[in-house]
Amino acid sequence: MDKSRDVRAISYLIFGGYAVLALALAATIARAQDPLPSWNDGSARQAIVSFVAQVTKEGSSDFVPPAERIAAFDNDGTLWAEQPMYVQFLFALDRATEIAPQHLEWRDKEPFASLLKGDLKGALAGGERAMAEIIMATHAGMTTEEYERIDKDWLATAKHPRFKRPYTECVYQPMLELLAYLRANGFKTFIVSGGSVEFMRPWTERVYGIPPEQVIGSRIKTKFEMRDGKPALVRLPELDFLDDKEAKPLGINEHIGRRPIAAFGNSDGDRQMLEWTGAGGGARLMMLVHHDDDVREFAYGAQSRIGTFSDALMDEAKKDGWPVISIKDDWKTIFAFEKRSSVTTGAPAASCGTESPAPPK
Amino acid sequence: MDKSRDVRAISYLIFGGYAVLALALAATIARAQDPLPSWNDGSARQAIVSFVAQVTKEGSSDFVPPAERIAAFDNDGTLWAEQPMYVQFLFALDRATEIAPQHLEWRDKEPFASLLKGDLKGALAGGERAMAEIIMATHAGMTTEEYERIDKDWLATAKHPRFKRPYTECVYQPMLELLAYLRANGFKTFIVSGGSVEFMRPWTERVYGIPPEQVIGSRIKTKFEMRDGKPALVRLPELDFLDDKEAKPLGINEHIGRRPIAAFGNSDGDRQMLEWTGAGGGARLMMLVHHDDDVREFAYGAQSRIGTFSDALMDEAKKDGWPVISIKDDWKTIFAFEKRSSVTTGAPAASCGTESPAPPK
Repeated sequence: MDKSRDVRAISYLIFGGYAVLALALAATIARAQDPLPSWNDGSARQAIVSFVAQVTKEGSSDFVPPAERIAAFDNDGTLWAEQPMYVQFLFALDRATEIAPQHLEWRDKEPFASLLKGDLKGALAGGERAMAEIIMATHAGMTTEEYERIDKDWLATAKHPRFKRPYTECVYQPMLELLAYLRANGFKTFIVSGGSVEFMRPWTERVYGIPPEQVIGSRIKTKFEMRDGKPALVRLPELDFLDDKEAKPLGINEHIGRRPIAAFGNSDGDRQMLEWTGAGGGARLMMLVHHDDDVREFAYGAQSRIGTFSDALMDEAKKDGWPVISIKDDWKTIFAFEKRSSVTTGAPAASCGTESPAPPK
Repeated sequence: MDKSRDVRAISYLIFGGYAVLALALAATIARAQDPLPSWNDGSARQAIVSFVAQVTKEGSSDFVPPAERIAAFDNDGTLWAEQPMYVQFLFALDRATEIAPQHLEWRDKEPFASLLKGDLKGALAGGERAMAEIIMATHAGMTTEEYERIDKDWLATAKHPRFKRPYTECVYQPMLELLAYLRANGFKTFIVSGGSVEFMRPWTERVYGIPPEQVIGSRIKTKFEMRDGKPALVRLPELDFLDDKEAKPLGINEHIGRRPIAAFGNSDGDRQMLEWTGAGGGARLMMLVHHDDDVREFAYGAQSRIGTFSDALMDEAKKDGWPVISIKDDWKTIFAFEKRSSVTTGAPAASCGTESPAPPK
């Protein structure tokens, strides 16, 4: 028996082990030092990092137990692109065209008649009522399971008109990092969106790491009935809850039952959610994404009918100390596909926001 | 340097370490062998254990990924005692008495006039409408935070009329073990109750290990308003959602967005939740607690107006293979306090169920 070989083997095991450990440690430290690689080092990023340090430091007066680390995120314009039009409404338009052959009565009925002629402007001349009719006609009448399949099938093939990518790739990489960073620090992340909850749930876990039970949104009524001897939940063409503005805190209270300590939005529809979050005791973080990058994404704000970021909201953000995230200045990368390919993200689309039709309310 | 001492020290460290490991392992095995110590070894317990083994066995056709391991539990009569009366209604009665001095108009107004004279039967002569009036008068008009404080204060002092214990101790020990066992196996546990969600949330985490965001229940409407310059959610005397019968699957769909793979109830109000759970594909577990122990708890069923367990439900359970849990035969211990003290649990109260007034609907 060659003892020196044994010693070498043991040394190798021990020191090889240390080397592996050291490498793992270095990687961990690197990750710990850079949890938000797509964020430039500015005040927005600093606000996030110091808030997380503050609420996770045991013994500190700002410490928040993990169970109470609730973070609420708006979806459209906060986690994914909402221009040139809310993704869900584009889905409704495609869906209306697809099921039109089963609705011969639509030929003489607005807003469908204009829609089927390709006249979107005419279809939307009826304003919110026309939009609501298109949404109901395309989102109701089927079981919850049928709807989920239709939703997934559409998202699997539909592409963003400018970025030529599936909509679920037009999600903001810095926000994905923020979601992961918060979860790594014991937070539970929720979506609180004006969009329909059923439209989001089939893909939020895969795309954002947010399971369906942590998605809050607008919803239509459903009905329990027996179909072929089996229970089914059938979607009715009737609004049950519109999760926007004042209703966002109500939806949070109804669903979560505790007040978030952090909230992220990008428009006037998120104001009350941020106010409600901020009115709790202890350390709080309220942030607004501002779309000011017409080269890489879209520039819109006070004049846009989709994702309106009014001057009043900007004033409130300044007054209440809500950090505003400038996409142009704070985000190194906007979409993950920018890094993976050299595909152009298209021409600047500065006027996108202001010329878009009225959003569904 | 005493080398032999070093060797002894190292041996001690190594073998002492092994001894600690071995002890820990033995304890783990013991726990693994007996995750449900308050359950007798019968068909109910076996159904639970084999279902859990089935859905957690990787590679098996019945394997369910952890994210989809959703278990739904009714509360009243399934997790805690609901006799001689729903706890929440007892809270409403106490609360009505407490705030009566601020409501001089109640002296001439039913059901309050009778209630204040101590005539419960007279107060409830108005049936469901009278009950709803008592609930609304005591559960609305305050902010969500004020309500939470009132709820907690009452639960801290109120005692169960028979067991002379706080209501939050009148919870079923075997069900606490079942909740913990499911969670240890990757399940997410939810409450789906006809009771009010706001009444349960302040204590479900402490008592059941179920956080507020995993509690679904009936609810009244709330309104967002500014009070002294701060946003507040104010409770309105108007029902928003009654989470019973057909509405339980609707509440689950609205809140969780996926179908549970296990559901536990004890009355006709849980039927549709169990049917909906059972109609999904793959392995499923639907169980009903049957209150048949008038010595240790209460015996009630088909004739009871609270927690009705009709003959039709029993037939359905047999037909569909839903194991029925007999409290008398399946539960070794019902309440944790039985083990901790020799306090009598009182005289048999066989007629409790059948003579109780109508429950709030």
